[in-house]
This record gives sequence, structure tokens and C-alpha cells, in this order.
Amino acid sequence: MTSPWRATVLTLFPEMFPGPLGVSLAGKALASGVWALEARDIRDSATDRHRSVDDTPAGGGPGMVLRADVLAAAIDAAAAAPDRPHLLMSPRGRPLTQSRVRELAAGSGPLVICGRFEGVDQRVIEARQLEEVSIGDYVLSGGEIAAMALIDACVRLLPGVMGRAESASEESFAESLLEYPQYTRPQTFEGRPIPEILTSGDHAKVAAWRKAEAEALTRARRPDLWRAFEKASKSTTKE
Amino acid sequence: MTSPWRATVLTLFPEMFPGPLGVSLAGKALASGVWALEARDIRDSATDRHRSVDDTPAGGGPGMVLRADVLAAAIDAAAAAPDRPHLLMSPRGRPLTQSRVRELAAGSGPLVICGRFEGVDQRVIEARQLEEVSIGDYVLSGGEIAAMALIDACVRLLPGVMGRAESASEESFAESLLEYPQYTRPQTFEGRPIPEILTSGDHAKVAAWRKAEAEALTRARRPDLWRAFEKASKSTTKE
Repeated sequence: MTSPWRATVLTLFPEMFPGPLGVSLAGKALASGVWALEARDIRDSATDRHRSVDDTPAGGGPGMVLRADVLAAAIDAAAAAPDRPHLLMSPRGRPLTQSRVRELAAGSGPLVICGRFEGVDQRVIEARQLEEVSIGDYVLSGGEIAAMALIDACVRLLPGVMGRAESASEESFAESLLEYPQYTRPQTFEGRPIPEILTSGDHAKVAAWRKAEAEALTRARRPDLWRAFEKASKSTTKE
Repeated sequence: MTSPWRATVLTLFPEMFPGPLGVSLAGKALASGVWALEARDIRDSATDRHRSVDDTPAGGGPGMVLRADVLAAAIDAAAAAPDRPHLLMSPRGRPLTQSRVRELAAGSGPLVICGRFEGVDQRVIEARQLEEVSIGDYVLSGGEIAAMALIDACVRLLPGVMGRAESASEESFAESLLEYPQYTRPQTFEGRPIPEILTSGDHAKVAAWRKAEAEALTRARRPDLWRAFEKASKSTTKE
């Protein structure tokens, strides 16, 4: 028996977990032991009478900062193997990508730290070499929902979680392109038919149409992805 | 009495809500009536005996596609005022930004549709003019956690939700920069002191140091944001 993929979450709100991760695809996989989830309360590592975990920012400013000593103690108490990635969910982090998700899903599973308040004392980030990860360019009230997004993205890629393994191969970002448009029955919806080519039975034409649609959508909606795709295509077609 | 900000969520898993949105900052604001949440089951709009909501993709391929007619009926049944944004959470969408979050928080609140399966029939996206929104360049098992991220980001900006209104003004993306590093007590952590300047009491020097740190971090970690920041700075300093 190999041990399952494991996510260890450090949070001030362990009662948020598993939450949506306990339902549907991720929830079924959790119940069947494909992966394991441990949510640990950072507050259990507070040392004073009031169990305080935060304090005012040095140098002034609004809000509260998560203390380095308390968070370091919580990280150490979790005793995650050093080869497991130690992630800190933070809008200051490097943007999460599908290729990083694939790496994380292929490993033994991360320790995921949920920030709160104005931020986390910089010294614990440096002392424990935390990898700051951002799920996007917006600010959440805490790292918990960000952690759920990261974990859900990983879990669906674990062997046996998706019904058909090939489901992941044609989706957005599989080839650095957005996904082509999808259609299903009924044949006509409010006067709009399914594009004829999709019901032609000509597999080569369907594939070519989908490729063209994915490229056109990416070019129009995500010039940043399109430039990266063009660059990668050129370098692979070079002799 | 004005009516509160309202999020209406269409999902196949209404039991996921409020989930993490019922805890902490967003949860307290929900309980006190600052905002309202309605999670509606898309399956209630299915019309056949089996309450089916999805079908195989036209043209072939893995997975299942959410039907246009069922989702359109669910949208129409929600009877959201036409001035409320109709959002579809999807990795094909435009990336969510903090400025879009601010717009959504300033309005009366969106209708948020959670996609599932391989995708959603393109015709309902067009017929109901859905705005496709992506929370990042990775793929989730469904739109629910993405909807939670969007709603949490909006709710924390609603009047009265954050303890001090100015908390939002110094954070990441407030000025298109990542946030400067934060420190708090203890004065020394594992031999690492708080940077002297932050305990100097010189407010001007603290502000200058923080600005320089935010700029250096953004330049190093997010050249894309840095280029946009430089461009915006130039255009505002021009005569």
C-alpha cells in the first residue's frame, strides 16, 4: 500500500474544511481514500493566555499581522516531511498555473498555509522557506478558499478521480490554449442549431474546427497566453 | 431600507453553500444581513424523468456538457434583474481582477453560474449573454470554489465588513503593486530582527521604505504587473 496524496492545511478556521472539498468529485475521492485531508488550527500553537496569533504591524498601518513565532510553531508541529512543498496562499505569491498544479498532484501532497489579516510576518516566510502562491490578482479575506481551489485542482488529476483519464487532455491550458466551444443536445436551442460540422461525423474536420476555435478564442481573449503559445510552437517546429 | 448586496448562485451542488462563506468575515456579514446568498439547484430546471442536466459533446470527445435548455431555464427561473451581472465561472473567461471585484461589490450583486463537466453549451452563453470569468489559469472540478472566491473578494469590500475601512487601501493591487513585507512582535524571531527603520518612529521613512519594497517585489516577481504600473505612472505624470 502506498500512502495516499495528502493535503495538510494550517488555518485559523479548520471548521471550513473539508467544506466544498467534501462534496462531488473531490468528496467522493476523499471518502474512498484516494487522498487525505488534515486541517490544523494555527491557534493551537499560540503560547499566551489569550491564545493570540496576531499583533499590530511594525511601522504602523491598518489591520493585524500573523506572528512569525506562532506560525513557525504550527508549521513545525505539523511535521510535514521536508520534501513536501510548503505553500503560503497569498496575493503576493507567484500565480498558480496548471503546470504547477500537475507537479503538486504528482508529488506526495503539500502543506498549505492560509494567511489572514494584513499578512504574515516576513521572517517566518524566509525562515521556513515558504513558497508564496497566488490564485489570482484579487484579494480574499483569507487563504482558505484559495487553498480549496489549489487542492481541488490537484485532486481531480489524481489517478482514478476523473471518470475517464483523457478528460484532462482536451481542456483549457492542456496545450496552453483556452478550450474550444462545446455543444450538446438538443439539436436546436432557441433557434440556434449545433454547428453542422460537429454533427457531420467527419472526425478530422471536427478536430480542425476545434483547433481553429481554440486558437481564435485564445487570441481574442488572452493575448498573453497566445503569445506564449506561438513562442512555444515556433521553438518546437525549429530544426 | 435599501436591500443588501445579493449573490445568487446556480449550481448542481447547492449544499456546498454557504460553506466557507458562512464562517469568519463573510459569515459574520452574512448573519448580520450585510449581504444575502441564495444557492439554487440547476437540476430543479431539468424537464425529463431522470432530471438529467448534461449530455455527451456534439462531435465527440470525453466528458459531459451542461445542456443549454436546462441552464437557460435555471437562469430564467432565478429572475435576476437584468442589471445584475450574469457571470459564468469558467477557465475560458477573462481573468478576474481586483478592479472588477470593486465594480461587482459596488453593484447590487451578481448571478453566478457554476459550470461543471467538460463545459457548458455555447448557445446558452450567447443567448443569455453570460460574462465568462476565470479566477486563474488552472482547472477546477467545477465552478463552485471559483464562485466562493469571487463572492468572498466582493463581500470583504462591502461597507461595514472590514473593521477599518482603510484596510483595503494598502493591500496588494490597491495601486497595482504587490504588498510590502509585514512584521510584528516579537522584536527578534530566531535571530532575525524587525528591520530597524520600521521601529524608528519616522513615518516618512517608513512610507518610503515600504514603497521601495513593494516596487522591488513587484518588479522581481510580477514583471507583467510592473510594466502596467510603469505605464500608468508615466501617463499620470505627463502634462
